[in-house]
Amino acid sequence: MDKKEYIKRQISRTNKKDYENYVITRIIHGINDLNVKFITQQYVKRPNGRALADLYFPQINYFIEIDEGHHLSQMEGDKVRDADFEDATGVKPIRIDVATKSIEEINQQIDVVIIEIKSLITEKKQKSQWMDWDLEAEMNPDTWIKKKKIHVNDKVAFKRIVDGCKCMGLNYVGYQRAGANHPFEKNTLIWFPKLYPNGIWENSFDEVNGIIIEKNIESIEKQNAHINSCLNDNRQRRIVFARVKGMLGDVQYRFRGVFELDREKTNKEIGLMWVRVSKEAKTYNYN
Amino acid sequence: MDKKEYIKRQISRTNKKDYENYVITRIIHGINDLNVKFITQQYVKRPNGRALADLYFPQINYFIEIDEGHHLSQMEGDKVRDADFEDATGVKPIRIDVATKSIEEINQQIDVVIIEIKSLITEKKQKSQWMDWDLEAEMNPDTWIKKKKIHVNDKVAFKRIVDGCKCMGLNYVGYQRAGANHPFEKNTLIWFPKLYPNGIWENSFDEVNGIIIEKNIESIEKQNAHINSCLNDNRQRRIVFARVKGMLGDVQYRFRGVFELDREKTNKEIGLMWVRVSKEAKTYNYN
Repeated sequence: MDKKEYIKRQISRTNKKDYENYVITRIIHGINDLNVKFITQQYVKRPNGRALADLYFPQINYFIEIDEGHHLSQMEGDKVRDADFEDATGVKPIRIDVATKSIEEINQQIDVVIIEIKSLITEKKQKSQWMDWDLEAEMNPDTWIKKKKIHVNDKVAFKRIVDGCKCMGLNYVGYQRAGANHPFEKNTLIWFPKLYPNGIWENSFDEVNGIIIEKNIESIEKQNAHINSCLNDNRQRRIVFARVKGMLGDVQYRFRGVFELDREKTNKEIGLMWVRVSKEAKTYNYN
Repeated sequence: MDKKEYIKRQISRTNKKDYENYVITRIIHGINDLNVKFITQQYVKRPNGRALADLYFPQINYFIEIDEGHHLSQMEGDKVRDADFEDATGVKPIRIDVATKSIEEINQQIDVVIIEIKSLITEKKQKSQWMDWDLEAEMNPDTWIKKKKIHVNDKVAFKRIVDGCKCMGLNYVGYQRAGANHPFEKNTLIWFPKLYPNGIWENSFDEVNGIIIEKNIESIEKQNAHINSCLNDNRQRRIVFARVKGMLGDVQYRFRGVFELDREKTNKEIGLMWVRVSKEAKTYNYN
C-alpha cells in the first residue's frame, strides 16, 4: 500500500453524513504535506470503555474531536472526557464545534488548528525530533531498531514473522512458528498469534482493556493439557505481534504490546488470560 | 437550509470508496470561498443516456470529471464523451486522472484546476458578470426577475407556488391551484405538477430526455376525457415548476423548463406526452 491508497482509505472512514468529513478533509488539505501522517478514528481507552478520536497525528501526538452535538449541558461531560483522554494519551484533544457554529466560524476554528499543527511540526523539526512519514520504513524493522523501542501507538505492522523477530534481535532468514524465545529478555516469548477463533483455538483480543484470551477447544483433555503446560512454562511474558489482515487483505503482524499471564484469572472456563503490562517494548539490533 | 448544511450535503454525495471525495474536498477547500457555489453529481444529458459530472461550478460553467479507471484504450471513448459533453454544456469537462497518477501528481492536477477556477472567477468579476452565491436569493423570485430569465441549470427551486407565479409576472398573495395562465405569453400555462405517481395520476418525468408523461388512471372514461380536454385546450405550452421534496424534506417547486404537448405521441396507452422545448424561460416583473 502506498500513501495514495492509505490517504484514500483513511478519509473514506470518516462519517459522510455529518461534518466530520468536511472538517477532516479541510485539515488534511490545509496541512498539505505528504510527510505528515494522520489516522482517522483512532481508539483511545477510557475508564468506561473506549472513545474514538476523529483525527490523530501520531508524529506530534495531536488529537482532534469533532463535536457534532454540542449543548451547554454537555460541557461538564466533555471536561470529564477530556481528563480521561489526557490520562490515556498525555494530551487534551482539540475540540472543533460544528454543531453550534456557522460555516464561517467552523472554518476559522479549523484554520487555527492548521496553524497550530504546522507550528508543532516546525518545533519538532527545530529540535531534530521530526521523522517524515514513510510508509515503507514503518514496515521495516530497522526503523524501529534505530528508534530503540516500539509502541502500540506507532501502529507498527510487519509483513513477515522474521521482521518481528529482527526487532527483538533474532536474525532469522525464514521462520514459520508462532513463537520464538526472546534472546535478550528472560522468560519471554516473541509471539505471533491469531487473536480470533481459528481451528482448535478460540482466541480473542480486547483492545480496550489489553486482554488476550487463549483457549484450546479441541477437547477437554487438550485444553487442560495446554493450560497446565503454560502454567508450568517459565515464559509467562509475551511480546505480541498479532496476525491480522491488512487493509488490502494481506497478512500483517501488528505489535500489540507486552503481556503477562494472569495466573489467578486463568482457568478452564476462561482459558489462558494474558494481560497487557506495557504498550511499549525495547528493540534490539539483530547483527 | 443554509450554506453550512448545503455544503455538508453536497460533499456527502461524493463517493467515499474511491478518490472522488479526496479530490472534491481538496478543490472546495482550496478555493476556500463561500461565495462560490458548487454542485456534486450534476446530471448532463448525452445522446445515449446521461452522465454525471462529479463537480460543477455553475457561476463559471465549469465541470470536473474524476477519472477513476483510466486506461489508454479509454482515451478514444473519452474524446467522444467530451464532445457530447461539450454539446450539452458548451464546455469540455476538466478531467482529473486519479487512476494512473501518484498522489503527488493528483495534487498537482488539482492545484492547477484551483488556479484556473480562481482566475475564471477574477475574470468574471472584472467583467462585472459575477454574482456571489446567495442561497436565500436563489429562492427569491426577484433575483430571477432581475436576471430577466431562468434556466434549468440555475437549479432554481421556490418555496411556494406564488413565487413561481411572480417570476412570470403574476402577483398573487396566495395560490393553491396547480396551474395559472401566463399573463404575457400566449397559450401558456404556468404549471406546478407532481411528476410522480400520486392519487389518480401516474405522472413521470424523464430528466435526461426532458419528457413529462401525464396520465389519469382513475378510469378509462376519465382518462379519455382528460386527454381529449387537453388536446382541445389551446394552452399546449407549459412552463413547469415541478413539486419536489427539498433536501430537508420540505416542499419545493423546481423549474424544469418549457414544455409543449406532443400531439403525435399522446395516446391512451402513454397518456399525455409533454416535450421540453427550452431549458430557459423569460421572467417578468409582477409590479
